Amino acid sequence: MTTNTQNLSGQSILAGVPTAGNGREVHGYNPATNQALDPAYSLIDTEQLKLATTAAAAAFDSFRSLDPQKHADFLDAIAANIEASGDELVARAMAETGLPEARLVGERGRTCNQLRLFAQVIRQGDHHGVRIDPALPERTPLPRADIRQRKVPVGPVAVFGASNFPLAFSTAGGDTASALAAGCPVVFKAHNAHPGTSEIVGAAITKAVAEFDLHPGVFSLVYGPGASIGQALVADPVIKAVGFTGSRSGGTALMATAAARPEPIPVYAEMSSINPVLFFDGALSRDPEAHATAYLGSVTGSSGQLCTAPGLVFVPVGAAGDAFVEAIGSQVPASPGQTMLTEGIYKSWQQGVDTLGEQGGVQLVGRGRDGEGENAPAPTIYSAGVEQLLANPVLQEEIFGAASLVIRYSDPADLATALAKLEGQLTATLQLEQSDYAAAAQVLPVLEQKVGRILVNGWPTGVEVGHAMVHGGPFPATSAPHTTSVGTLAIERFLRPVAYQNFPEDLLPAPIRQENPWNLNRRVDGVISIAGE
Amino acid sequence: MTTNTQNLSGQSILAGVPTAGNGREVHGYNPATNQALDPAYSLIDTEQLKLATTAAAAAFDSFRSLDPQKHADFLDAIAANIEASGDELVARAMAETGLPEARLVGERGRTCNQLRLFAQVIRQGDHHGVRIDPALPERTPLPRADIRQRKVPVGPVAVFGASNFPLAFSTAGGDTASALAAGCPVVFKAHNAHPGTSEIVGAAITKAVAEFDLHPGVFSLVYGPGASIGQALVADPVIKAVGFTGSRSGGTALMATAAARPEPIPVYAEMSSINPVLFFDGALSRDPEAHATAYLGSVTGSSGQLCTAPGLVFVPVGAAGDAFVEAIGSQVPASPGQTMLTEGIYKSWQQGVDTLGEQGGVQLVGRGRDGEGENAPAPTIYSAGVEQLLANPVLQEEIFGAASLVIRYSDPADLATALAKLEGQLTATLQLEQSDYAAAAQVLPVLEQKVGRILVNGWPTGVEVGHAMVHGGPFPATSAPHTTSVGTLAIERFLRPVAYQNFPEDLLPAPIRQENPWNLNRRVDGVISIAGE
Repeated sequence: MTTNTQNLSGQSILAGVPTAGNGREVHGYNPATNQALDPAYSLIDTEQLKLATTAAAAAFDSFRSLDPQKHADFLDAIAANIEASGDELVARAMAETGLPEARLVGERGRTCNQLRLFAQVIRQGDHHGVRIDPALPERTPLPRADIRQRKVPVGPVAVFGASNFPLAFSTAGGDTASALAAGCPVVFKAHNAHPGTSEIVGAAITKAVAEFDLHPGVFSLVYGPGASIGQALVADPVIKAVGFTGSRSGGTALMATAAARPEPIPVYAEMSSINPVLFFDGALSRDPEAHATAYLGSVTGSSGQLCTAPGLVFVPVGAAGDAFVEAIGSQVPASPGQTMLTEGIYKSWQQGVDTLGEQGGVQLVGRGRDGEGENAPAPTIYSAGVEQLLANPVLQEEIFGAASLVIRYSDPADLATALAKLEGQLTATLQLEQSDYAAAAQVLPVLEQKVGRILVNGWPTGVEVGHAMVHGGPFPATSAPHTTSVGTLAIERFLRPVAYQNFPEDLLPAPIRQENPWNLNRRVDGVISIAGE
Repeated sequence: MTTNTQNLSGQSILAGVPTAGNGREVHGYNPATNQALDPAYSLIDTEQLKLATTAAAAAFDSFRSLDPQKHADFLDAIAANIEASGDELVARAMAETGLPEARLVGERGRTCNQLRLFAQVIRQGDHHGVRIDPALPERTPLPRADIRQRKVPVGPVAVFGASNFPLAFSTAGGDTASALAAGCPVVFKAHNAHPGTSEIVGAAITKAVAEFDLHPGVFSLVYGPGASIGQALVADPVIKAVGFTGSRSGGTALMATAAARPEPIPVYAEMSSINPVLFFDGALSRDPEAHATAYLGSVTGSSGQLCTAPGLVFVPVGAAGDAFVEAIGSQVPASPGQTMLTEGIYKSWQQGVDTLGEQGGVQLVGRGRDGEGENAPAPTIYSAGVEQLLANPVLQEEIFGAASLVIRYSDPADLATALAKLEGQLTATLQLEQSDYAAAAQVLPVLEQKVGRILVNGWPTGVEVGHAMVHGGPFPATSAPHTTSVGTLAIERFLRPVAYQNFPEDLLPAPIRQENPWNLNRRVDGVISIAGE
């Protein structure tokens, strides 16, 4: 498989128009070689950004008024166009990210499934959130007017691509899919680490916009420096919400900009999590070696560059725990480093690993071997005691990449204490069998206050895209714990309710007309009424 | 009716314990006389505040785990206890706010109905937001684990009482009711303008907490200076969300504090709105005089101190509009001032009215007459043209109290332009008949982006508490346009989703157990499944 660069323009797509940026140029890099990839990508300036945001504003009214069938078909068409870009997309993503082919083929499938799932949500229509309180003209002392509620899209949304999911959380990823499904135009700021991948997917979206004869402002793809164009995008008065997946520093910088606007807007940032895994003695005793193997697999998959990678594992003191730690020590040296996404991410990982290794009470359990090529460092596992974790906040800082810390605990009661001191997390995992239920039940209330998803007897990496998924959690896991960035509930981030009081049927929008032309489920006087029943 | 002060202690109630504050003392004032009311209320210091927040944290786990029936009964009991406080409550509220008896009796009814409505929500259970994606063990390439989602309360909530609804948006008002319904302990910061009213209601809640043998930290009532205790409350790490109704400056100050915390939290602030009313020519022509009467009634009710009072009214040029303005000019002089809530609010109103009157192009339409006693200024109506509104942001600043601005427009197209320049609003109102539908349809898309509730042929004052109500809207109407502060949807402000993956039935919380012991509606694989069907 080779990377065919002849179809790449190196340009932003501003409301459908490929546009050379007025700023400096950047290249994607092959992280396995640190070699620059062609073409160069020219970065836009703030005046060019205005073309994208102005067009997004102009596109909003027609886009949010689309017939649901056409709206859903549009999302399906994006998926089809991504699939039609074929091997070129996967090859380019491999070159730009160092991620293996199988992972990227799978990620492409997830990306397209995600778009099609949101198309189903549009067709099903519950996201309109229809509530009807019928008029009570005879009520005393005052009659009640007919009041109807539906949700409307918030307006144009800025989406920032993640480095670690160049497809599923980038150009046509979860944030873009949920915003488009809500009826919000998207101005997408590409991650500079995979500009070619972004262009291919951006072209697939742009093609779908044209195929459905939508206003071209429905989607723009911009290349720009995060510190200027990213900030300017969030500050633009046209933008009404922000989707971001990335670092804590990047997310909090956007949050500050959004909060300082004359009209503050929400930032849905998914940032930092170390995803504690709790081994209880019963479960661990069954087969410590197999647990160690599974743990290392979860730590090292995708070179550890997953938001839900287990960075902190609680293991009981005693024979089973000792066997687990010994098994890691014997297994990890055979674990090869895998190419990380960028040289910068690798360096940041190395700094994190070095810093953690220097902390008092932290011991090296084992180190793998360096991988082939550049930026493929050896996976590294440390251990410490609960008391060190409680005393030193450095031990709960995320290290993005293949590194993890084993915490030995002696009493299940210590677990609740330690977990209560953790920051907010995307996930927590319980490794248990029936004899551990009582101990697990003790920590569950703490976990429910700390995380977005709790797993039993699995590993947190691998996030199902469905209706019940929560990829969220208290700060700093996310900036908005009341939502999720994966799964269909994510559409609610880009909607807000509006009430219509005493409207004549002729002026009501379709979702809340009495005749119910879209055949929606409705909450009538507080009780769900299923369409057609 | 006299004010009986013998039952008032002048103390905060910290987790059930009446406590004299270590700070200075304040008094309520009768705004009709500017006379201080006994007793003095001692303000707490930050150490005393810690007693309340620490107790709220300690109360959280047991309170959020309550059986739904007991939880609902607790809210009903608060309502019953408020009713049992009888005439003393209304008399004290009248003395502290200058609001008339009928209004306060009605407001007490609304407050109790609101609590009982949230009790119904708890019993009905849809707020748990149950979603179940069953396991698919045979799925290829990877099986799917069973994933279940429910919503959990966010944690202790800080609520700030509004000045203008001493019952319905104060101690046991909408924010307190929805937070308690969600399962969140409440630390309530009383508004210093009605301390006695707050104490009576706070005692009713405290009594219910004791009657149901709940942890006393479920509710605290604190008196303190907003600038220190209010800010310290929002900054307290125990607090996970804030409910506020009040001024734009007050709300944005709390937003800044909440955003600057190590763990930022959401502030649900309802702040500033001028609630545009749009007269179309057909409707206005029917009976301009009657419309003028209704308008003045909405402007002057409760001395104009309602969040949804119509501060801006668009009236067409031409004969009907002239007749409307003339009718105001002839009717308003007979309109008496009514006592405002506080001397400070009166002075602020006066300053706003003076400033508006000095703006270029703004003309006085008419002024009422001063009311009896202190702080009862004459209602004041100004007019200006669309061009002045577009050019001068002062014309869209909220004046809290009985004042309003009539804007004359010549072309319905100008309406959309003017509305697009307005800030976010709680409401907009269309006065129309069938001949106006086409013109109204032109402005509806703009209004849907600007407001939380759109009314036809009514007046925005008077907010129904139901399932479909939205009392919200884009900034500065609120800080969180995706929610409402009135109506049952408000409970969602204090909930967040958690997913449970691959849990054994024994460890699942009741709302998402397969056997469905709480008989909840559930979304299964994306489709609503009604309990019992």
